[in-house]
Amino acid sequence: MPIITLTTDFGLRDNFVGVMKGVILGLNPQAAIVDLGHEVPAHDPAAAAFLVHTARPYFPEGTIHVVVVDPGVGSDRALLAARAFGQVFLAPDNGVLSYVLEAAPSSVIRELTNTALRLPEISRTFHGRDILAPAAAHLSLGVPFEDLGPETRDFMRLPSLEAHLDQDRIVGQVVYVDRFGNLVTNIPARQVEARAGRGLTITAAHIFLVGLAEAYSDVKPGQWVAVAGSSGFIEIARYLRRADTPPTLTLGTQVILEFQR
Amino acid sequence: MPIITLTTDFGLRDNFVGVMKGVILGLNPQAAIVDLGHEVPAHDPAAAAFLVHTARPYFPEGTIHVVVVDPGVGSDRALLAARAFGQVFLAPDNGVLSYVLEAAPSSVIRELTNTALRLPEISRTFHGRDILAPAAAHLSLGVPFEDLGPETRDFMRLPSLEAHLDQDRIVGQVVYVDRFGNLVTNIPARQVEARAGRGLTITAAHIFLVGLAEAYSDVKPGQWVAVAGSSGFIEIARYLRRADTPPTLTLGTQVILEFQR
Amino acid sequence: MPIITLTTDFGLRDNFVGVMKGVILGLNPQAAIVDLGHEVPAHDPAAAAFLVHTARPYFPEGTIHVVVVDPGVGSDRALLAARAFGQVFLAPDNGVLSYVLEAAPSSVIRELTNTALRLPEISRTFHGRDILAPAAAHLSLGVPFEDLGPETRDFMRLPSLEAHLDQDRIVGQVVYVDRFGNLVTNIPARQVEARAGRGLTITAAHIFLVGLAEAYSDVKPGQWVAVAGSSGFIEIARYLRRADTPPTLTLGTQVILEFQR
Repeated sequence: MPIITLTTDFGLRDNFVGVMKGVILGLNPQAAIVDLGHEVPAHDPAAAAFLVHTARPYFPEGTIHVVVVDPGVGSDRALLAARAFGQVFLAPDNGVLSYVLEAAPSSVIRELTNTALRLPEISRTFHGRDILAPAAAHLSLGVPFEDLGPETRDFMRLPSLEAHLDQDRIVGQVVYVDRFGNLVTNIPARQVEARAGRGLTITAAHIFLVGLAEAYSDVKPGQWVAVAGSSGFIEIARYLRRADTPPTLTLGTQVILEFQR
Repeated sequence: MPIITLTTDFGLRDNFVGVMKGVILGLNPQAAIVDLGHEVPAHDPAAAAFLVHTARPYFPEGTIHVVVVDPGVGSDRALLAARAFGQVFLAPDNGVLSYVLEAAPSSVIRELTNTALRLPEISRTFHGRDILAPAAAHLSLGVPFEDLGPETRDFMRLPSLEAHLDQDRIVGQVVYVDRFGNLVTNIPARQVEARAGRGLTITAAHIFLVGLAEAYSDVKPGQWVAVAGSSGFIEIARYLRRADTPPTLTLGTQVILEFQR
Repeated sequence: MPIITLTTDFGLRDNFVGVMKGVILGLNPQAAIVDLGHEVPAHDPAAAAFLVHTARPYFPEGTIHVVVVDPGVGSDRALLAARAFGQVFLAPDNGVLSYVLEAAPSSVIRELTNTALRLPEISRTFHGRDILAPAAAHLSLGVPFEDLGPETRDFMRLPSLEAHLDQDRIVGQVVYVDRFGNLVTNIPARQVEARAGRGLTITAAHIFLVGLAEAYSDVKPGQWVAVAGSSGFIEIARYLRRADTPPTLTLGTQVILEFQR
């Protein structure tokens, strides 16, 4: 029985997440539902896109991901289903799937228009419950992906997650700040490994670091450190402290890696 | 296997919720447990009552709801089991079930007195773990509702959730503020639909709106809007902003709808 | 199928917890995963140790507990598996298991060195995902405890959770503050029961109480009260208010019980 993951900006104060689970389990009592995160900063498709993109490799084939970060709910934005990496992603068309799809060697995207796979009554403010949750449940019960709706190639894309890569210089940026305040960049750790053995300096705003550490704890509490983070990207952190200090060090801050020849 | 939902004011910082799940799964390893919400404002039976009442229609027949918002734990307040809408609700007798029961065409209420369906040792401060969780697990295993304890008709009621309905005028109030700061009223959207085609003005404190929008996103960010919310009640909101500004616009604020003749 | 519990300081804002669940369910789709708590104060092994220790009695035999409060991740601290009370505990060697092990009549501890029970690729910053989660999944599938790695007797211990017990006087301290602000001590309620019938005075900083109440609600809102808490320890609380007021009444505050002869 496939896993269904939920990623929303609903928080856990209201009953929105629980209600989606009720809808899913009402259709498929055997569904294994996993909360990927419900504290996505409200109305921030980029953060949701990053969470889904970096979680995806740790879920088995067949997993169905439902993403409900949907400031445009009730407008005429489409709802999408994408098949990529042997998994399915259901979400509003607002960019939340763009990092997964940018990384997907091949993918098929459909518009969720099949009204037979929805709740009988559709509200204007909660399509996660009325359309996305039932679609996920039906998929988990074996309804073919093709039944969801017609194929489309037209979907909203966020600015690319790709860093600018030169042989001697990589220019990226902070794309996510985790709850510990670690600054996660879009610079793949494997790009640094590919240049192993060369001197490395890292600059982010007023912070200047030499080389990567192996772990946060390689430095003393409060000291700055750059590591290959668990999501496969370079992170800039302070051991046992928060590293984010807006406006200088925060989402969007440029991070430059320079390698000695 | 029935679903068991949990609604509490325990938060997720302590292990109270996890421990209740341990008790349930220890008795019924097959139970499907759904968190309806654990961030109910501490000691606020009305918020819990609203969350359970509005989630109920999205859960299948047989679902067992456990509500532990229980400031009177250890006092002589009773513990109740109510059967309504083909589901079962377990909770302390402090009003948390009153919105469900007000809406129930017929319901049976029993007092949870059967000591055989409790943990062997009962604390004075955590009946959710010691009495409600095991009762839910036993019910999910097929113990008949009648075994829980004797029938009762005496239970605590919160002020009615009903708005005051006239043909030309509906007077309600804000009964819930969701995590986005949307103001949820007790005015059923179907009452507005029943008066469709007539001019509508909406007044809440200093906010004056003309007509319902179809969706939050029908207006620009920051603008005020009234919509038929996902729970079936009229909501007053600001698109991409919080609408609650105590003391003028908050829980209890009167909301008046006037319809042209 | 055994239960797997998760206790972390990850919060629910990032996808760390969801990713661990993806790893577990990818290996064992039947696993029943319970969140024991993900809001452990960041980098606070003592709080995690207390949560696991007090939750343990409410989980059935065979339960596998995974604790990821791991400020030393990536350093040379070991990862441990302990078998105690018929359950298994997986955690970094930083003291998070010391309360469970202090209470265990007998326990066996192994170092988690078997690389066959890990993810193929091991990051330096997320051993919860790469080592602990797969180990738990493998155990839940029947891999013998002995296969995890070699036995060890060398592990980090936090200061004892034991209070100082005299016939006429018990000296303990506040070891946990719950989300309601109740002050949980390390003084076992059964030690007070063993001295039942004797006059009792309780002193904590400037608070002086006579005797235990049966429940928080035995006093009026805002009044102080001492009760036998749900975890089996004496708690000092204020009914419907927070009792913690650093620096006088907080973690580590001494609590003295004196019994009349």
